[in-house]
Amino acid sequence: MSTTFAIWRDRFERLRAHKAFELTVITIIVVSALLIGAKTYEETNRFQQWLLAMDVAVTVFFLVEILIRMAAEKRLRDFFRRGWNVFDFLIVTASLIPLDDSQMVLLARLLRIFRVLRLVSMIPELRLLMAALVKSIPRMGYVALLMFIIFYIYAALGSFLFAEVDDFLWGNISTAMLTLFRVATFEDWTDVMYATQELHAWSWVYYLTFIFLTAFIFLNMMIGIVLDVMQKESVQMEIESGEGEAAELHGLRRDVRELRDQLSRMEALLERRS
Amino acid sequence: MSTTFAIWRDRFERLRAHKAFELTVITIIVVSALLIGAKTYEETNRFQQWLLAMDVAVTVFFLVEILIRMAAEKRLRDFFRRGWNVFDFLIVTASLIPLDDSQMVLLARLLRIFRVLRLVSMIPELRLLMAALVKSIPRMGYVALLMFIIFYIYAALGSFLFAEVDDFLWGNISTAMLTLFRVATFEDWTDVMYATQELHAWSWVYYLTFIFLTAFIFLNMMIGIVLDVMQKESVQMEIESGEGEAAELHGLRRDVRELRDQLSRMEALLERRS
Amino acid sequence: MSTTFAIWRDRFERLRAHKAFELTVITIIVVSALLIGAKTYEETNRFQQWLLAMDVAVTVFFLVEILIRMAAEKRLRDFFRRGWNVFDFLIVTASLIPLDDSQMVLLARLLRIFRVLRLVSMIPELRLLMAALVKSIPRMGYVALLMFIIFYIYAALGSFLFAEVDDFLWGNISTAMLTLFRVATFEDWTDVMYATQELHAWSWVYYLTFIFLTAFIFLNMMIGIVLDVMQKESVQMEIESGEGEAAELHGLRRDVRELRDQLSRMEALLERRS
Amino acid sequence: MSTTFAIWRDRFERLRAHKAFELTVITIIVVSALLIGAKTYEETNRFQQWLLAMDVAVTVFFLVEILIRMAAEKRLRDFFRRGWNVFDFLIVTASLIPLDDSQMVLLARLLRIFRVLRLVSMIPELRLLMAALVKSIPRMGYVALLMFIIFYIYAALGSFLFAEVDDFLWGNISTAMLTLFRVATFEDWTDVMYATQELHAWSWVYYLTFIFLTAFIFLNMMIGIVLDVMQKESVQMEIESGEGEAAELHGLRRDVRELRDQLSRMEALLERRS
Repeated sequence: MSTTFAIWRDRFERLRAHKAFELTVITIIVVSALLIGAKTYEETNRFQQWLLAMDVAVTVFFLVEILIRMAAEKRLRDFFRRGWNVFDFLIVTASLIPLDDSQMVLLARLLRIFRVLRLVSMIPELRLLMAALVKSIPRMGYVALLMFIIFYIYAALGSFLFAEVDDFLWGNISTAMLTLFRVATFEDWTDVMYATQELHAWSWVYYLTFIFLTAFIFLNMMIGIVLDVMQKESVQMEIESGEGEAAELHGLRRDVRELRDQLSRMEALLERRS
Repeated sequence: MSTTFAIWRDRFERLRAHKAFELTVITIIVVSALLIGAKTYEETNRFQQWLLAMDVAVTVFFLVEILIRMAAEKRLRDFFRRGWNVFDFLIVTASLIPLDDSQMVLLARLLRIFRVLRLVSMIPELRLLMAALVKSIPRMGYVALLMFIIFYIYAALGSFLFAEVDDFLWGNISTAMLTLFRVATFEDWTDVMYATQELHAWSWVYYLTFIFLTAFIFLNMMIGIVLDVMQKESVQMEIESGEGEAAELHGLRRDVRELRDQLSRMEALLERRS
Repeated sequence: MSTTFAIWRDRFERLRAHKAFELTVITIIVVSALLIGAKTYEETNRFQQWLLAMDVAVTVFFLVEILIRMAAEKRLRDFFRRGWNVFDFLIVTASLIPLDDSQMVLLARLLRIFRVLRLVSMIPELRLLMAALVKSIPRMGYVALLMFIIFYIYAALGSFLFAEVDDFLWGNISTAMLTLFRVATFEDWTDVMYATQELHAWSWVYYLTFIFLTAFIFLNMMIGIVLDVMQKESVQMEIESGEGEAAELHGLRRDVRELRDQLSRMEALLERRS
Repeated sequence: MSTTFAIWRDRFERLRAHKAFELTVITIIVVSALLIGAKTYEETNRFQQWLLAMDVAVTVFFLVEILIRMAAEKRLRDFFRRGWNVFDFLIVTASLIPLDDSQMVLLARLLRIFRVLRLVSMIPELRLLMAALVKSIPRMGYVALLMFIIFYIYAALGSFLFAEVDDFLWGNISTAMLTLFRVATFEDWTDVMYATQELHAWSWVYYLTFIFLTAFIFLNMMIGIVLDVMQKESVQMEIESGEGEAAELHGLRRDVRELRDQLSRMEALLERRS
């Protein structure tokens, strides 16, 4: 029993490592993405039966594929250790929710869309890119917190002062934050300002300080990230290049000092004899 | 009497340094921020009594907290020496203005909003971030002055030439500067231009040169700051790494020259004897 | 026969290499560009005969010029080896499509516009710039793919959820992608959001996450390109400056070790004799 | 006569070099700027007499100031050798155009505005900033040319294809270029696109390729300038720090090789004697 199992596991492992298997999976993901796109066109109503069949086929394929990849692992636990496997597993199982149930149709449809994300887990270059993106999150964390504090204070001020001007924009602190985000993207921000200026003529101060503060912090964040990435890059380069120039220079100096000691010994010998 | 005082001061000092104390303060600041936010919702009218009680409680807590931190100091003067302490003190005392006085209600409310800023003084990472932001201000000073001069000249030109077109946008030099800021953020700037083009067909020259100049200077400012921060970073790295490569190289060369002198002496000895 | 051919080839080669020839070609390209521009003014209708004559003259000149450059080559194959020559050849032959045929008039006109691009192939600095632009394309490839995936997923979500709100903006996945591109450029994006918020109050989450994701990835792409270009620049500088400091340092250390070996031999000699 | 002249020149030279003189000039420039600003307010009509007097006073002061600075020079030619002096001279003489002539009133007013620019020539930090801005112009030249070519081609295409849709936006090549500049700043560009899409459904291709191309080239230009400035900075640092590390390393290696030659000679001596 155990040997049959091992033989099958080996077969699955070889299958999983095969380039053609990977390409097939990527092709099916693209097909699944095109299916989702096709469903958004009204003209596809008459192909509905055919689309549904395709959808079931794709779902079954993904299920089989993930089972093969699980069977290829020596212990099931190893499969779940890699983050991207967990990610694939969640996406595949989520799309198993039946389409028939009228209540769940929308949810099932939405979950199926996320299958396109499996492209990221299948293409190594995209995986690297995602890893780089994730790495730059902590650096942004505190800047985002600082920005949130500024948004919160301005939103509180705005909703106290301008609520009577326009309830839709400044009604409460959350709508005020949304309005401020709009101002930060320069989206028709003068309309917002001209409206409040009619009641509070000085309100341009509010908008200009807000724009300067957010632009200033955004600039700082951008520079911070650039410098952070550059520093990491240079550290990595030094590790790769052996020891780094500083270490090399230090070694050189030690060598030269040893030479001097040796010379001094020799000079002493020469002088003693002369 | 003096010893009792010293005992209490020690107790306060230990309390202040306690991690739990810091966490409590941060929690209360967040609660105070949520209170401010809650007040902006109309549905909270029936909880008004409760909100007021909470507000008083928060105010009292902040007062007690700052008194503890002041009592923990050996001399009161030391407390006011650190900028962030002064900042906290001002925010806490400002929020002591009574809510009852109908005239001061709005001011008191606005001042209470700034209590959220105490998060910045409590979280060390945010304090560092703020310090970095403040440091980059001088570098921007002269660029801002240059930009102001350009805005001023264009605003004067604009209000002389276009005042008859649209008094709301170009009526006097200050509204013209606001309009130019709008143009600089690309906010419906073509509407402004199309209006003036009807009277002065050539006025696109005015807008395009203005956009190019401001974009050009902004670009220059951004690059300037990036380079400035990078230079400071590299100087700091050289200080941290001991002496810097240049110094190391210089030392090496001196060592090698000493070797040569020693060798020359030895060679002279050898030649004399042969 | 063959010698006459060789003499003519030499003459053409000298002509092609002449500075005046280059300047004439650039002048004619600029004239051709001005002709195209002039045709877009309605007032030029009465000069139509004259403009047509000029157009024929320019076309003939370009034909003669490319024939001279082909005749100056030893083998015709060499001409087509350089990418810019192929580029010029295609543009010139494309503009030979006759203007008379009423069906082809528009196409011929459009193709003639691309003759302005020959400026790029004629001015070496622009050619260098284009080469630099082309080099940075691969670095952007995977980021563009990642961005496309995000656009596709959000467009699918958007067209499922918001199609009933506004068929013009969210009707199918391709119009939804165009709408999302509009949102990514901040172009009246709040109008789009306010419309969908009436039916789905929570839809601000959709827009804000989308804006953050695209801005985040765009930022990352920009930094990635900056670093990439900088790394290539520094590699090139090391190649130009001989061997690079690391190689220089390595060589120095080897030299110093050889000195030590030599000294050790000498010390042995001295000690043996004393 | 000549000595009296020399005494006066010395006096003027000392006056010009005096800090108080500089501060006075800056103050007068600021006053002149405020005067210009004040004139744009309608409420100032009743102070018109007073404003006119001030204006005359400022004009006379500037005239006297520039005459002092010219008189302080040994030869008048030296005065015009420095670019900023020519700049000041032109601005001051231009504002001498009489205000009375009703025809010239507007021109005189406009020229007076440029007196604010004298702040740049008076403050050394602003002069440095301007020099840096001017230095980065050549680097941008060819990128600007490339961008102009792309604008020109797209404008020609646009005015051929979309002139029938909207004559105001696409009527001829120059209005089309202005419209494209609007698209490049993302200013209501979708309105422009939606209008042309009604006739040419595929026209989104035109807009998207244009946006990508201009954004791409702008990005490249920005990176190019950053790198250019950084390279210049590092070259300057190497010049300031003596010779640069590369030269230092090279010198070191030569020293070490000389040591080896010396050692070889000594070894030969030792071996001969043993």
